Amino acid sequence: MSGRLIAVGVGPGDPELITLKGARLIREADVVIAPVGDNSTASVAHGIIDGLVDPRRQQLLTRVFPMKKELAEMRPFWEAAAVEVAGLLAQGKTVVFATLGDPFLYSTFLYFHQVFAERFPGAAVEVVPGISSIHAAAAVAGRPLGLGADRIAILPATFEQDRLRQTLREFDTVVLMKVHRVFDQVRNLLRELGRLENAVYVRRVGLPGETVIRDLDQIQVEDLDYLSLVLVGK
Amino acid sequence: MSGRLIAVGVGPGDPELITLKGARLIREADVVIAPVGDNSTASVAHGIIDGLVDPRRQQLLTRVFPMKKELAEMRPFWEAAAVEVAGLLAQGKTVVFATLGDPFLYSTFLYFHQVFAERFPGAAVEVVPGISSIHAAAAVAGRPLGLGADRIAILPATFEQDRLRQTLREFDTVVLMKVHRVFDQVRNLLRELGRLENAVYVRRVGLPGETVIRDLDQIQVEDLDYLSLVLVGK
Repeated sequence: MSGRLIAVGVGPGDPELITLKGARLIREADVVIAPVGDNSTASVAHGIIDGLVDPRRQQLLTRVFPMKKELAEMRPFWEAAAVEVAGLLAQGKTVVFATLGDPFLYSTFLYFHQVFAERFPGAAVEVVPGISSIHAAAAVAGRPLGLGADRIAILPATFEQDRLRQTLREFDTVVLMKVHRVFDQVRNLLRELGRLENAVYVRRVGLPGETVIRDLDQIQVEDLDYLSLVLVGK
Repeated sequence: MSGRLIAVGVGPGDPELITLKGARLIREADVVIAPVGDNSTASVAHGIIDGLVDPRRQQLLTRVFPMKKELAEMRPFWEAAAVEVAGLLAQGKTVVFATLGDPFLYSTFLYFHQVFAERFPGAAVEVVPGISSIHAAAAVAGRPLGLGADRIAILPATFEQDRLRQTLREFDTVVLMKVHRVFDQVRNLLRELGRLENAVYVRRVGLPGETVIRDLDQIQVEDLDYLSLVLVGK
């Protein structure tokens, strides 16, 4: 394959939070692939890419990667994309796979990458880091992630309750992902550990509907969203 | 204070890894403060900022913040900077505090911020996230930080041995900071836990002398550096 595959993190949503390098590589690419997993984020990633791509000169491919419970159900979509990308690389094209946030942190790209690396072992992939939703949420909430010798844990709130409790006891900062599914449990646990006042809820950071809620007792069911996290400080 | 204080993360060192927003705010600022803590990183942050600042129109202030063992020894430097920044804000200036990496993750800015917030409570600080050395190291090493429901821990390798062992058992990805001080212990622990082959050493990411070493057994004392980390995957 004589082409070049580059994963570019476009940042959390604000079109200005892409890096200079990411923006340049999107502008220079022959083909830009924009994954669409979820309708609410699709238009956001597109908004960022649309401002950079010149449709007279470049090809923009939108590919749907539905989020399913079982990885096996998603695999055919990744397989198809891997074969398509390999074909473009064989033609010598420079292909950018654009992904929200950072390509190496909980991204859509990582699923593609696993399948691509299995099917085409040895094919090189360059990775351009992006601002992840975690860094963006910390900035928006005004809450540092870690200073000096602080310990930081990032994990799904859906993790076993006992081990979540253990993590909250051991770490200075805990970032709880996927919190919408188990919000009441999380809130009770934070109250039990006396860390409710140190917690802040950030919903849809960088996206339309971005909200920061500092008093977790104010949160209602309608405030919860798939794209939300809780930052727990010291 | 009628001015505006903005902390801008300039990224890990590559001048192209600053965000569009960070670059714009540095170009628009009246005053840019570049902290100098350590001679080896000073020139790097400067290189990034120098390409953006127009000295005919803007003021570039270099301020030395030496790294000492005791926070109390560093405090006078932060105090002096806080008073200086407050003075600029009182004059209505827009001041950018530029910091390597991300302002809210193990940055020089955070020490300044603590002192500034104590001395001038209520003064607003805007934060523009940057690419941290952790995201940059993962990208350079080709090692994802986390996928799906993975748990990630970031902590100093100087942490108690038993608790480090516990963290390595509990988390899918462990990022060990400050690893140069205790490298032999860390290597032995990773060997004991069967995770040596999943570990990669990244030195001076984004800076001159950037090195990725995938076989930790190859690492000699002279490879160790204050600015290094070990990424431990599954």
